[in-house]
Amino acid sequence: MIFRLNSTLEFCVRPPATLFLSVRAQPSRCQTILHESASISPAGSGEVIGSESGGNRFDRIKISEGTRASIHYEAEVETQCSFLEPDNLRKVSPAQMDPALVTYLFPSRYCQSDLLGRFAWQKFGKFNSAYDQVVEITRWTFENVEYLSGTTTSATSAYDTVTQCAGVCRDFAHLGIALCRALTIPARYFTGYACRLEPPDFHACFEAYIGGNWVLFDATRLAPANGLIRIGTGRDAADVSVCTAFGIASLVSQTIHCEATENDFRPHTHEDLETVAVSLAPPGQ
Amino acid sequence: MIFRLNSTLEFCVRPPATLFLSVRAQPSRCQTILHESASISPAGSGEVIGSESGGNRFDRIKISEGTRASIHYEAEVETQCSFLEPDNLRKVSPAQMDPALVTYLFPSRYCQSDLLGRFAWQKFGKFNSAYDQVVEITRWTFENVEYLSGTTTSATSAYDTVTQCAGVCRDFAHLGIALCRALTIPARYFTGYACRLEPPDFHACFEAYIGGNWVLFDATRLAPANGLIRIGTGRDAADVSVCTAFGIASLVSQTIHCEATENDFRPHTHEDLETVAVSLAPPGQ
Amino acid sequence: MIFRLNSTLEFCVRPPATLFLSVRAQPSRCQTILHESASISPAGSGEVIGSESGGNRFDRIKISEGTRASIHYEAEVETQCSFLEPDNLRKVSPAQMDPALVTYLFPSRYCQSDLLGRFAWQKFGKFNSAYDQVVEITRWTFENVEYLSGTTTSATSAYDTVTQCAGVCRDFAHLGIALCRALTIPARYFTGYACRLEPPDFHACFEAYIGGNWVLFDATRLAPANGLIRIGTGRDAADVSVCTAFGIASLVSQTIHCEATENDFRPHTHEDLETVAVSLAPPGQ
Amino acid sequence: MIFRLNSTLEFCVRPPATLFLSVRAQPSRCQTILHESASISPAGSGEVIGSESGGNRFDRIKISEGTRASIHYEAEVETQCSFLEPDNLRKVSPAQMDPALVTYLFPSRYCQSDLLGRFAWQKFGKFNSAYDQVVEITRWTFENVEYLSGTTTSATSAYDTVTQCAGVCRDFAHLGIALCRALTIPARYFTGYACRLEPPDFHACFEAYIGGNWVLFDATRLAPANGLIRIGTGRDAADVSVCTAFGIASLVSQTIHCEATENDFRPHTHEDLETVAVSLAPPGQ
Repeated sequence: MIFRLNSTLEFCVRPPATLFLSVRAQPSRCQTILHESASISPAGSGEVIGSESGGNRFDRIKISEGTRASIHYEAEVETQCSFLEPDNLRKVSPAQMDPALVTYLFPSRYCQSDLLGRFAWQKFGKFNSAYDQVVEITRWTFENVEYLSGTTTSATSAYDTVTQCAGVCRDFAHLGIALCRALTIPARYFTGYACRLEPPDFHACFEAYIGGNWVLFDATRLAPANGLIRIGTGRDAADVSVCTAFGIASLVSQTIHCEATENDFRPHTHEDLETVAVSLAPPGQ
Repeated sequence: MIFRLNSTLEFCVRPPATLFLSVRAQPSRCQTILHESASISPAGSGEVIGSESGGNRFDRIKISEGTRASIHYEAEVETQCSFLEPDNLRKVSPAQMDPALVTYLFPSRYCQSDLLGRFAWQKFGKFNSAYDQVVEITRWTFENVEYLSGTTTSATSAYDTVTQCAGVCRDFAHLGIALCRALTIPARYFTGYACRLEPPDFHACFEAYIGGNWVLFDATRLAPANGLIRIGTGRDAADVSVCTAFGIASLVSQTIHCEATENDFRPHTHEDLETVAVSLAPPGQ
Repeated sequence: MIFRLNSTLEFCVRPPATLFLSVRAQPSRCQTILHESASISPAGSGEVIGSESGGNRFDRIKISEGTRASIHYEAEVETQCSFLEPDNLRKVSPAQMDPALVTYLFPSRYCQSDLLGRFAWQKFGKFNSAYDQVVEITRWTFENVEYLSGTTTSATSAYDTVTQCAGVCRDFAHLGIALCRALTIPARYFTGYACRLEPPDFHACFEAYIGGNWVLFDATRLAPANGLIRIGTGRDAADVSVCTAFGIASLVSQTIHCEATENDFRPHTHEDLETVAVSLAPPGQ
Repeated sequence: MIFRLNSTLEFCVRPPATLFLSVRAQPSRCQTILHESASISPAGSGEVIGSESGGNRFDRIKISEGTRASIHYEAEVETQCSFLEPDNLRKVSPAQMDPALVTYLFPSRYCQSDLLGRFAWQKFGKFNSAYDQVVEITRWTFENVEYLSGTTTSATSAYDTVTQCAGVCRDFAHLGIALCRALTIPARYFTGYACRLEPPDFHACFEAYIGGNWVLFDATRLAPANGLIRIGTGRDAADVSVCTAFGIASLVSQTIHCEATENDFRPHTHEDLETVAVSLAPPGQ
């Protein structure tokens, strides 16, 4: 499926400051960047850092004078979803796990899985397979956490959301990740563009590692899993914020757009989840 | 300098369970493992995972029956400290920083640098150089935080310690790391063996990235910087716990030993810090 | 019903220090102190403070020299439980509430009802009457929170327990109180002696104000409601700790005993709760 | 000194709801209400509750239909400040303290003095007298906490503010109270009108009990101590919020006005604090 997407972000800055922006689609075996371009202001202040062949890419913008900075990014991206049989997705025990995955079992800034163990096992331990557990985590989160802008801040973590029961996509993702890790299912944060998201915005959800694949879950049910374009991956939002500012900077405006170029795009709904799993990552990566 | 070290850990386990143990000295350009051996019980249950040529190594022990597990590790390790001129250690601005370092600027489970920005700048922002800032963080922590076993738990974080003013080496390290990151100085957790530590135990301290080097700091002042042997490195203790158990396991006994084999070992004291900085990591790693 | 009870507490103290002890049974229209005596060491260091005719009583012990302090208290107490028809217990709306009750609707140190509103309404809002809501809170707590000594500290609050799902009687009480207040049901902390509690200890539970009565609830199910003898009442444990020390003091031993003097004591069980409510307080007090 | 004051608050409400408003000046031996009037809309929905002769007074407004509610309050109030010699203000030890004061030593929702003991003693323990300790707490708070609207929420507590170093008058007051209690100085929350406060608003500060008097302290330095008119007193803001809503209600507009009627009003500044203490409460109350 091919998507056309763009984003424009404008910042008010007090120099000197450095911004790390996560807005570029990530190239991978599942995601081909057909073309992309970015224009950054002030001209010459930006630099793309991060791996070309996988891994997160940042636009690093260095503001040494002036009080405004902006980026306009646009791209055409082809994504390849894998649709997987839930029955074939077996939990990988820590005893068999690739060491690179172990990091996604540990607690992180916004996902204190160490504090949620008892809760997670009580609530979700009874489900048979890892896949069913994560489906149930996602369903429970959707039913118990209200999607409400303005109720949370950048300091809100899974430990808060599990009790306060309100938040935005970032909070939903953190809660899902923390509960998975508490059940010894590796889980990571996904940030990207989302087709048919209303209102248009960057989106966050999470991936759980089951049966050798990073399977995508979105407890907000606000965007189709096969309409997502990955920007980056991390332990939680601390790793892949849309903007991390070193120095003083504030976002003053933001426009985001994402659409499927083809007419036959069939959005994958959350009801489908019980019969088919979706992965946007190459197996094992 | 050559050190002889060993550790014995015994666990009571309810199978099935998997343990990840961080007890092996880490090979690197600064640390040569002259010899090492480990014996694990039950025999055949263990496997070393992680990179042979740098990076953390874990002993992964899989307990499928029985209720006891243990590891005995011993090694002879040669370490090479670099002694550096503080005046030559300049702060690396995020705008120049190797992307691999950026992760050490982000908040993590036990180091909520995002919540400590105002505090850190107020207290330490006035010091001229990054090196002086970290020396001052270390001094302030030593003077304001009491070393007291039993006052903290595995859930205690830098955000607690800055206020509660008590803890153990792990808490001292987390606080140092969080304050450095809040000042945009990359910082990471160091866990290892420590010569002349009383009572003998594993030790934790931290490294700050200044002037292209990971410089070692230890706010506990309990062990000489040049008497440390690295086991591993991480964002915080979540990454390199001595033992991470998946399943139910508890440590029932622990013996640790570490001594310099040569007689001319001159411990580097905290007073030396103002004139000379110590690094135990190859430049840039 | 008549109970014979005693308690002996010994402290190690660094003078000067002042202890406030809550160990005396509280006289009220529902609770007659048939006789009581206390012996305090060092002799002459103690003084009973607080109202003689209701309200909490403290033994204030002032240690100006020596390193030991102790209290032995014994009493014979007659209690009168009221058994109430749940159907007659209607919720008192804040618009009708006696102003003195309003304080028990506000959040307190260990009962952050302000943070638990959404959770409480989601989980318990659907039950018809205030009485049914509190019965359900109590049942839910019993089923979801594990009674486990050693998992919590004196800093643990309802906000932690709702997620960490483990604790002791104090934590169970705090959680019940916070959830009631979130539903605009006044609730307060009860501390006392408990007949047939194993192992013998002081006990904590909570009272909810419904239909003009303080109705007793105990989510631990460890002691019969009609076997409780009130020591005191407060917003939470901060108000009526067994011992509040100003200065340095630690409890070194504690012995508690409580038994019914009559043979026909029929313990009120939690199954009874659905058909009959128990109050140990005079109506409206 | 005589002050003329008024306030108008308008709420958007979803009935049924009950509001408790703290806007009336509190009558006491130090504060005479020369005249007052309140008009409440919807007419007939309000009722004044609380003691006429001391203690907090609330306007309780019961909204059973309609979606708007408002109160307009105006009063002329004569206050009598006591000016006290700091040298005569001795700390009252818990061993001598009136039991009614003990409650102001205990931690409360927003003032976790139990977690701040070590910090408080380290920082302020060295000052000789209780008065000097509280002056120093106030000075330290002023110098280390930035007055910044919008940085805190109604969930922010002293435990947060001591670290995050930003907040509004409520947060400054909570921090002062928590630190006093940690030093065994009784402290309580003061809310009122403030002459010469810019922009006009309700104000919060705190009182510490020293030498038999409730001495007023205001770490914000935004209002003169002798220009304050008390609305109420509590353990912290949980007890005396301007508005506590049971049900759904939001403040949509607020106008506050307070001025001295006489021309010779000399504002008491914070520099005066070192030579003279101010109390707005009758001795011992």
